[in-house]
Amino acid sequence: MFKKQKGNVLANAVFLLFAVTATAACADKQSTEVLDGNASDATVIGWMQGFPPAKDKRITQPDSNFFSFPKLRWSVCHMQELLPTATIKRDPYAYRPLPYKLLSSIDDVAFMPLDSQTSMTWKQSLSVNYTDGLLILHNGHIVYEYYSGCLTPHTLHAAMSMTKSITGLLAEILIAEKYLDEQQNVSEVVPELAGSAFADATVRQVMDMTTSLDYSENYADPQADIWKYSYAANPLPKPADYQGPIGYYEYLQTVRKKDQHGQIFGYKTVNSDVLGWILSRVTGLSYQQLVSRYLWQRVGTEHDGLVTVDGLGTAFAGGGISATLRDLARIGQLMLQQGRIDGVQLIPAQAIQSIQQGGDKSAFAKSGYTSLPNASYKSMWWVFHNKHGAYAARGVHGQTIYIDQFADMVIVRLASHPSAGNAANDPTSLPAYQAVAEHLIKQGTQDK
Amino acid sequence: MFKKQKGNVLANAVFLLFAVTATAACADKQSTEVLDGNASDATVIGWMQGFPPAKDKRITQPDSNFFSFPKLRWSVCHMQELLPTATIKRDPYAYRPLPYKLLSSIDDVAFMPLDSQTSMTWKQSLSVNYTDGLLILHNGHIVYEYYSGCLTPHTLHAAMSMTKSITGLLAEILIAEKYLDEQQNVSEVVPELAGSAFADATVRQVMDMTTSLDYSENYADPQADIWKYSYAANPLPKPADYQGPIGYYEYLQTVRKKDQHGQIFGYKTVNSDVLGWILSRVTGLSYQQLVSRYLWQRVGTEHDGLVTVDGLGTAFAGGGISATLRDLARIGQLMLQQGRIDGVQLIPAQAIQSIQQGGDKSAFAKSGYTSLPNASYKSMWWVFHNKHGAYAARGVHGQTIYIDQFADMVIVRLASHPSAGNAANDPTSLPAYQAVAEHLIKQGTQDK
Repeated sequence: MFKKQKGNVLANAVFLLFAVTATAACADKQSTEVLDGNASDATVIGWMQGFPPAKDKRITQPDSNFFSFPKLRWSVCHMQELLPTATIKRDPYAYRPLPYKLLSSIDDVAFMPLDSQTSMTWKQSLSVNYTDGLLILHNGHIVYEYYSGCLTPHTLHAAMSMTKSITGLLAEILIAEKYLDEQQNVSEVVPELAGSAFADATVRQVMDMTTSLDYSENYADPQADIWKYSYAANPLPKPADYQGPIGYYEYLQTVRKKDQHGQIFGYKTVNSDVLGWILSRVTGLSYQQLVSRYLWQRVGTEHDGLVTVDGLGTAFAGGGISATLRDLARIGQLMLQQGRIDGVQLIPAQAIQSIQQGGDKSAFAKSGYTSLPNASYKSMWWVFHNKHGAYAARGVHGQTIYIDQFADMVIVRLASHPSAGNAANDPTSLPAYQAVAEHLIKQGTQDK
Repeated sequence: MFKKQKGNVLANAVFLLFAVTATAACADKQSTEVLDGNASDATVIGWMQGFPPAKDKRITQPDSNFFSFPKLRWSVCHMQELLPTATIKRDPYAYRPLPYKLLSSIDDVAFMPLDSQTSMTWKQSLSVNYTDGLLILHNGHIVYEYYSGCLTPHTLHAAMSMTKSITGLLAEILIAEKYLDEQQNVSEVVPELAGSAFADATVRQVMDMTTSLDYSENYADPQADIWKYSYAANPLPKPADYQGPIGYYEYLQTVRKKDQHGQIFGYKTVNSDVLGWILSRVTGLSYQQLVSRYLWQRVGTEHDGLVTVDGLGTAFAGGGISATLRDLARIGQLMLQQGRIDGVQLIPAQAIQSIQQGGDKSAFAKSGYTSLPNASYKSMWWVFHNKHGAYAARGVHGQTIYIDQFADMVIVRLASHPSAGNAANDPTSLPAYQAVAEHLIKQGTQDK
């Protein structure tokens, strides 16, 4: 029932909502006994069951740290009930089903976890990884689909920082369609940011997070700027004597510059929200309208998505989206197919090619992500520069949309791992994805 | 641009959310200058436009009284962005379009408003009534569809107390399907209510609001119980020294009995939430699951609905639903067709017949609703007992689903009238509905 949990504070993807959820990262701080995947299952614990739920089974906002483990295993599926949100509208007339060709052999695919001498099967990895849902598309067919804990095919799950990748993709689309110039300075697009660190950064530097910011996103430090950011954005009422910024936009204006922009990759969520502001300013559309118009309505989603909003109704472009497993898979497949589905070019191929090419590897190398050697970060996507041309959206606690161009494969994983940082997930997920890709390629060869 | 607004505190339908929204009824308190339908249009005022919105155009929760007029003309379309909510899921595979046969002649239909000597056209009434959306179904076809202000075909609008009618319909369905016995005492179904006013009331008395409660729902009185109820349900954090009930369920246990149940109709929202609790207890399903299962999934809705929730995730069965105009029309059409659509009996006909028959007219007459002579209230629907067999769901600020059995007509009106009480809407809506019904009947005769 219990297993040892290694400490880890690496924020290679970030969760940010509210200061009250600071305990999200507590499990990272020390080696401690943590409930395993089965014992921490939200339905096994019985959170919020009954009318009313028993007192010790309640998860409420704001007094119960809803994003602390194991509560987060329920909360990832219930963001709308905990927070003000905005809808990302689907097109009810444009539903496009995903075809099935299930492959039972995937469960038995074996792989060697990083830093391990013992092989593991795909099926074993799901529980080890606290997976809530997993879907694999191969050659455009669903070959594998799995739901657990709080997740069903019709449940929206927090996408966390995969939201950033959606934001980055939107920016690439608007660049390709000439609404946005990546070489412009941010202050030319959003004059309100003229006094901030972002003023003389280019749109591209914001997109690739090579801005140099005097801003800490270290969860382990209660004084880190990330928590002040969270607090500013929190829609709950502020104390009467609060003098600080209100909402994402006001906060962003207070961020100060550190060194020269364009030198080092620095993973900081504020970049994504600056980008969200830029997108709304150049189009006149809200973030949720943009995601709906360019993605949700076009790919034939099954359900509306949602995005959390601050006290002024501004969407959290750095981490606020929730969506179903299948709808995220549709976006992955759109990427894999260079924006073209059923013969229709839904978004410009150039937008996706720009992401696939990857970013500045030397800027990335300087940032110290040792678990991702040779990688880069481009337009808020993680590009692995491996022989399969793989790249991914990633979010804390194990979220991923993993696109393997060579294997014609998309994997979407939704999870609620006790550790925020994905270095806790990578050892049992990245080699598993590679092994499944090779299995599918081999399978395809045998079929022929 | 301005017109005189008559005072009116008659709560023949009720809005209840939070104490902070107490000003919702302010416009009722005195005769005052009120912006007319066009000048108060949310898009004309420009609420929440821009990134960020200008300071004087912001509507935020909790510090801006978002349900005061004219802000409410924006807020009725944005409940999800202001409050924690739960989704009422549609079935993405069961969408059923509504056929069109538009009739332009309806705009010119003239009628005589109650207490008026001057006739008015249907088209004029829409602005006079602060209508956000209006749809008329006749013989199963959409013959009229209108959107204004904040509303689009894809926008969810607050249904207000029409939520109660959904709750009552669910109860009738569960009675017909033998999950619920209307003659049981409430305390037999929900033992937690044994110490409350509801203990020895029957389920039927709760459904018809003939319980006798020591409970005031007078908006004009800041000490009225309705505000304490609102405060208990408010998901915002309570002060540290707050000792009162938390959430709908705890509050309901504190309501005390006044006289004998079953004698007089008394419109009190707490009955609807007791009924919501009963429904969840007998089925083991949440309110949002029940509305989804019995209505949203069956009638082929176009969009998910939503319902506001208290701090413990309990849906507001007395007034929390938001839905699109067309989806509410689908529910109206389901009622009109006795639960049978496209040859399939989606819900028991008995459930609808029970509502249509109406309730105790003498109990209703004692309650003093002079603007609704001869009417009754049955299972949280208003039954007019007129020659057309008309009955309606009604909600404050002008919401209605009006079902005219004789004319084979359903009218859904979504609105944001400055006055909460529907006595302000009735003079320019009830006779208009009757006139349109007669026009459609005549039209049908001419067609033959």
